[in-house]
Amino acid sequence: MDIYKAILLLSNMSSDATISSYSYETLKVTTPADHIYHALGEDSNCRAVIISGSGKMFTSGIDLMDLMSDFTQLQGEDAARIAWGVRKKITEYQKSFSAIEKCTKPVIAAVHNGCLGVGVDLITACDIRYCSQDAYFQVKEVDMGVATDVGTLQRLPNIIGSRSLVNELAFTARKMMSDEALSSGLVSRVFPDKASLLSAAFDLATDIASKSPVAVQGTKVNLLYARDHSVEESLNYMATWNMSMLQTEDIMTSAQAALQKKTPKDVTFSKL
Amino acid sequence: MDIYKAILLLSNMSSDATISSYSYETLKVTTPADHIYHALGEDSNCRAVIISGSGKMFTSGIDLMDLMSDFTQLQGEDAARIAWGVRKKITEYQKSFSAIEKCTKPVIAAVHNGCLGVGVDLITACDIRYCSQDAYFQVKEVDMGVATDVGTLQRLPNIIGSRSLVNELAFTARKMMSDEALSSGLVSRVFPDKASLLSAAFDLATDIASKSPVAVQGTKVNLLYARDHSVEESLNYMATWNMSMLQTEDIMTSAQAALQKKTPKDVTFSKL
Amino acid sequence: MDIYKAILLLSNMSSDATISSYSYETLKVTTPADHIYHALGEDSNCRAVIISGSGKMFTSGIDLMDLMSDFTQLQGEDAARIAWGVRKKITEYQKSFSAIEKCTKPVIAAVHNGCLGVGVDLITACDIRYCSQDAYFQVKEVDMGVATDVGTLQRLPNIIGSRSLVNELAFTARKMMSDEALSSGLVSRVFPDKASLLSAAFDLATDIASKSPVAVQGTKVNLLYARDHSVEESLNYMATWNMSMLQTEDIMTSAQAALQKKTPKDVTFSKL
Amino acid sequence: MDIYKAILLLSNMSSDATISSYSYETLKVTTPADHIYHALGEDSNCRAVIISGSGKMFTSGIDLMDLMSDFTQLQGEDAARIAWGVRKKITEYQKSFSAIEKCTKPVIAAVHNGCLGVGVDLITACDIRYCSQDAYFQVKEVDMGVATDVGTLQRLPNIIGSRSLVNELAFTARKMMSDEALSSGLVSRVFPDKASLLSAAFDLATDIASKSPVAVQGTKVNLLYARDHSVEESLNYMATWNMSMLQTEDIMTSAQAALQKKTPKDVTFSKL
Amino acid sequence: MDIYKAILLLSNMSSDATISSYSYETLKVTTPADHIYHALGEDSNCRAVIISGSGKMFTSGIDLMDLMSDFTQLQGEDAARIAWGVRKKITEYQKSFSAIEKCTKPVIAAVHNGCLGVGVDLITACDIRYCSQDAYFQVKEVDMGVATDVGTLQRLPNIIGSRSLVNELAFTARKMMSDEALSSGLVSRVFPDKASLLSAAFDLATDIASKSPVAVQGTKVNLLYARDHSVEESLNYMATWNMSMLQTEDIMTSAQAALQKKTPKDVTFSKL
Amino acid sequence: MDIYKAILLLSNMSSDATISSYSYETLKVTTPADHIYHALGEDSNCRAVIISGSGKMFTSGIDLMDLMSDFTQLQGEDAARIAWGVRKKITEYQKSFSAIEKCTKPVIAAVHNGCLGVGVDLITACDIRYCSQDAYFQVKEVDMGVATDVGTLQRLPNIIGSRSLVNELAFTARKMMSDEALSSGLVSRVFPDKASLLSAAFDLATDIASKSPVAVQGTKVNLLYARDHSVEESLNYMATWNMSMLQTEDIMTSAQAALQKKTPKDVTFSKL
Repeated sequence: MDIYKAILLLSNMSSDATISSYSYETLKVTTPADHIYHALGEDSNCRAVIISGSGKMFTSGIDLMDLMSDFTQLQGEDAARIAWGVRKKITEYQKSFSAIEKCTKPVIAAVHNGCLGVGVDLITACDIRYCSQDAYFQVKEVDMGVATDVGTLQRLPNIIGSRSLVNELAFTARKMMSDEALSSGLVSRVFPDKASLLSAAFDLATDIASKSPVAVQGTKVNLLYARDHSVEESLNYMATWNMSMLQTEDIMTSAQAALQKKTPKDVTFSKL
Repeated sequence: MDIYKAILLLSNMSSDATISSYSYETLKVTTPADHIYHALGEDSNCRAVIISGSGKMFTSGIDLMDLMSDFTQLQGEDAARIAWGVRKKITEYQKSFSAIEKCTKPVIAAVHNGCLGVGVDLITACDIRYCSQDAYFQVKEVDMGVATDVGTLQRLPNIIGSRSLVNELAFTARKMMSDEALSSGLVSRVFPDKASLLSAAFDLATDIASKSPVAVQGTKVNLLYARDHSVEESLNYMATWNMSMLQTEDIMTSAQAALQKKTPKDVTFSKL
Repeated sequence: MDIYKAILLLSNMSSDATISSYSYETLKVTTPADHIYHALGEDSNCRAVIISGSGKMFTSGIDLMDLMSDFTQLQGEDAARIAWGVRKKITEYQKSFSAIEKCTKPVIAAVHNGCLGVGVDLITACDIRYCSQDAYFQVKEVDMGVATDVGTLQRLPNIIGSRSLVNELAFTARKMMSDEALSSGLVSRVFPDKASLLSAAFDLATDIASKSPVAVQGTKVNLLYARDHSVEESLNYMATWNMSMLQTEDIMTSAQAALQKKTPKDVTFSKL
Repeated sequence: MDIYKAILLLSNMSSDATISSYSYETLKVTTPADHIYHALGEDSNCRAVIISGSGKMFTSGIDLMDLMSDFTQLQGEDAARIAWGVRKKITEYQKSFSAIEKCTKPVIAAVHNGCLGVGVDLITACDIRYCSQDAYFQVKEVDMGVATDVGTLQRLPNIIGSRSLVNELAFTARKMMSDEALSSGLVSRVFPDKASLLSAAFDLATDIASKSPVAVQGTKVNLLYARDHSVEESLNYMATWNMSMLQTEDIMTSAQAALQKKTPKDVTFSKL
Repeated sequence: MDIYKAILLLSNMSSDATISSYSYETLKVTTPADHIYHALGEDSNCRAVIISGSGKMFTSGIDLMDLMSDFTQLQGEDAARIAWGVRKKITEYQKSFSAIEKCTKPVIAAVHNGCLGVGVDLITACDIRYCSQDAYFQVKEVDMGVATDVGTLQRLPNIIGSRSLVNELAFTARKMMSDEALSSGLVSRVFPDKASLLSAAFDLATDIASKSPVAVQGTKVNLLYARDHSVEESLNYMATWNMSMLQTEDIMTSAQAALQKKTPKDVTFSKL
Repeated sequence: MDIYKAILLLSNMSSDATISSYSYETLKVTTPADHIYHALGEDSNCRAVIISGSGKMFTSGIDLMDLMSDFTQLQGEDAARIAWGVRKKITEYQKSFSAIEKCTKPVIAAVHNGCLGVGVDLITACDIRYCSQDAYFQVKEVDMGVATDVGTLQRLPNIIGSRSLVNELAFTARKMMSDEALSSGLVSRVFPDKASLLSAAFDLATDIASKSPVAVQGTKVNLLYARDHSVEESLNYMATWNMSMLQTEDIMTSAQAALQKKTPKDVTFSKL
């Protein structure tokens, strides 16, 4: 396999981060930065993304001092003009998280230890969430005097089954430990430690990356479409999407592989 | 009870199917066919539907060779004209599953053994899902090079609580066993074997069939409406719906029965 | 703390109700009445609401005789004119439950023993649901010959993860016990008895009431908005909402408290 | 005709108003006040409403001094808390105009001379607009430093055909004279003077009031529903609406009248 | 041209109809019947449809006696069960008109003389409306004691620019003559008589039928989609639609024709 | 006036363009280029934008050869992978036009002579349209074998009142002359020649630029929001928007100016 098919993003958003020496063959280790998700969306070599934290925590959230500084920098004394600037900033932050969703490759969050504040906004924009036993999650913003505005309130209720729990977390900022994260459906698997977590996330990414990108990315696009539309609307969109996608050579490639009892991993699908 | 109130559909979509000898009094055993759900929707004698598999599996999904043949038959060499034909075919398939939803009688899926590919599309269109211990579920299409387009991506996220799990199933085509199907909410009950599964499904169908069809079918119509609309929109629709339905004699019949400590089963409600 | 921050509504909808002597310092005990939720929404002294039942049950639902009387009182013999009156009545009932949602303060339902019929409509309009071990829930209306029309069909599927379960409850009117209520996500916690239930509900209300009302109520408004809109729509609304709300003094107050290792409870936020 | 079927609201919003002595038989002359439209919606004697101005102008808009006073009265110095109060006020104003729409009886605006600022918000919430030759319309708010927030921006584009014109009016606050109001579709008829305007409005109201209220009010409800929904959604709602309404005696009454070559005016339909 | 490309439907809904002897080469004259529009949608030889009346009027609407008979035939005395039957009938009627929209070929209404009642429902479902000088239009249902339920209330406001006019027509059942039909935008052209009307309609149909069916039908599908969705939604759908459609050979065929100064009429596009 | 408040974009999309010598004081003449609209949106010195053509025509549309080259460049032979590239291209084009809408400053199209193909897509994304007597408009894409996909089908029906006309234009590609553009509402004014057209457009831009940018841009944002949402949704958004915007100093500035009988042009509003 001469092209890498998965990518591991080691975020060091946690202030006391020590760069992880974790490494895999054929893996690209990247520090998240502006527009990285957009770039990944464009990179046809990349077929799956893992977001992980390189520090002690997954992320401790936005630094309080930064936030205070950000908003005190907003110029002008007219409330309307300050509001205009505030809106612009929020929209920028929102876009940086929504870019994860818009990236058509599956994005896997691998969470260890603390995932606080914007960390929760971040992982709710991912497609699959795994965590280690020591993980905990906190929608902290209510304790900062604000209704969080970059995704948690919008996405979390779509992600876990119990609305009573969502509301409780958002109103109280209490910690949710890994076992409750699993039983509530926030994460789909829990692992004993960070090493096994990352190993499983990488296996998952590799598995997904081995499949037809036409099938995988079409699946992501349509799952997200369905979240925000009625079933009838979504079926209509799906049918329109597959007008072209069902003309792909990947179907015949897959069918032949299946008849020969091969798995997708034994087959090479062209880049998308 | 001189009219049958429940119906058992014994599907033999599984290729190695042997016709089940399973049978119940007052039960109509029918092989699913085109428009069967539509017909059931029109049949005022039928008040609940059970869909079950008569073979070794619930269903093994669309036959690979059939699919390949279907799409190679699409005439013409112009990509747009092929696309037009593809769209027509997809829409037809979608309609055959949506007919289950549009049938105003509750539809119960009783799943044993494998439920693969379109089998998952099928059961997500049903109202209630029961399964036996040996059941497993697989969103297989990604391994066939396509984003599945007849309902799973559109309905599954509405049916189970964990989006991380939905995405994992859709991207990896991995098996989900009956216990995970229960804990995730895909099925609401699991039974030791197929016999007890069918027995419970039939009891459930009989229970539902004994109730006021005005109440039951109005409930189904409005539950489905609510899935695709805001709460406010749905309350408005509900109020409009009950403008006529609250004028039914079934309310007085039910109230009198309740005052006489009878259950709905002791009462006969007119056909709808 | 010179103003009360939580309020306990002791409903005596259950016919065999004995007024509870339960009492808390700084607590306002109120019998629910028309427009009480609306009034609470306007009362800037109130920051959280608890709804609890003072009788043997949480609520036994609408009295059958009342319902029969209500609808037989509808004047006129023309079906269209009766329908007009029916619609008006339903809309009024719907509004009395929706007022709980529209009240921007978090509303906590504390359910003990039976919660039947409209009781389920009531608690689905609340934000957080706790119950005692002896609690059970029943969507009874189907046994009264009607599709319930004041909220359960519209809100319940948004509240718990398993649609198969929602449908089963609505079609069969069967009892759901407290353990299933917890595992399905309907309630987020179960307590041994009514006393510990109310104690926990009051602690929760007190905790929420200690936080910035700008943050808490903005969170409720936007969580509800997100339920009924796409993620993109909801992010847009959120950004517009915070154009003004991020200009609040509560952020600086919260930040300073955090830097001084204080919790929100050590801080006084102005009324909203 | 022993009950009045139309009502003329003579508004004196114009500051230099002199109470009009205009009068009609069977006509109720009312000064608009809070909740008047709501009251009319409930009054089964009223079947059509006319809104007209009793002063020199139809309305000169909100008084500038009142507006300044309104918003300076908003207590508190915290921007978020001021915002909360602002929102409450705007919502109240919006509701007072939306009450015209929610009133199920047709509402006719009869505009003479100036219709400025909130006057435009008011008439866009009406169903039919007539004006006199001397009428002119001005979306003035942009010249007061605000984006108008009580209906014009939301309803005007639905009311007239040219979006370029709507935008021009809203961005420039220029006057639109009666001839352009007619050609653009804002009003459906223009009359030489106020007397003929009122006379025509009253004839129209009388004509509408003579028809089946089941038909007329059902038409209004569904026309408004259709404005805000897709055609398919609206057809569904319409079918649900008519489940009860088509059972009205008014159909047989109308049919018999038609067979006897009578008009609706020769027939008495029961109140609704 | 060995295949006909346009089709003229000569409806004889008017009771005093005399079959028109009007005829064109390559034209298929068909009496409208159930499912005719659906059949046309499937017929790849047909590329445009004209609907015209063969009697004295375009259509006099539903026969009053038929309507009365239809609804008195509804069996049962329970209001809810009658309502169920009513809904079924309305939905069937609605579908027969919506089939015109769903037919992907452009449908042209050529209206002469009276177009009453369901005639208006019919033409609002068409894509282009032409009429003769003697044409008039009447939304008659309000005079029959019902809110019309098969399309006019849902589609008319989307078709003409003035909502005041729409409401006036629907509330009063007054006649709208051809000149007002033109100025309001209901029809896009008016002709001196029926002969010139049909001639122009046929020229229009022939012109459209000569163009690429991929372009024409894709245009219709997306224009209708845009009517019921936001601009952003519609652009997304459009982009997805053209994923396949822009791969058509018709673009190159068209481009080459343009470079050779030919018009579409000089080129043959394959059937769709 | 030390800052320019309007900007004239002289496009030379027409192949035979000769750079116009037209010029105004305080005017910035800019050739449209990628992201220019985005940049203008960010430039607080700019308060209104004019788009005009500098060549013989406003624009002759996309060059046929360019289009053919664009799509033949799409690499790969797999239909699904070509489709992926096509989608990316269309989306980019769509965004370049939608940027005009997203630019919160009013954008005025001043059209002379031919406005063909993408020219129509362009002007439908503008807020106000003026044209000269010699202007004509053509939705040409149907003659190129494609359904136009960058905005005309999505926006045109919202802009003019007659859907019959919209459909006719889109299906036939016929020319619409300036008088029909005016009567249909596509443009709001027609001028004798290009000089008077540009003069009027500049006067309009100057007028708008003199007003409070808080008011003007808030108006644009909310007019566009209203186009794509129900009236109730839009009123809610508007109220939320004005939570901050009504706290602007511009209201007091405007009120004081009005009391002193000044116009907005005599007042200086801060940049936004």
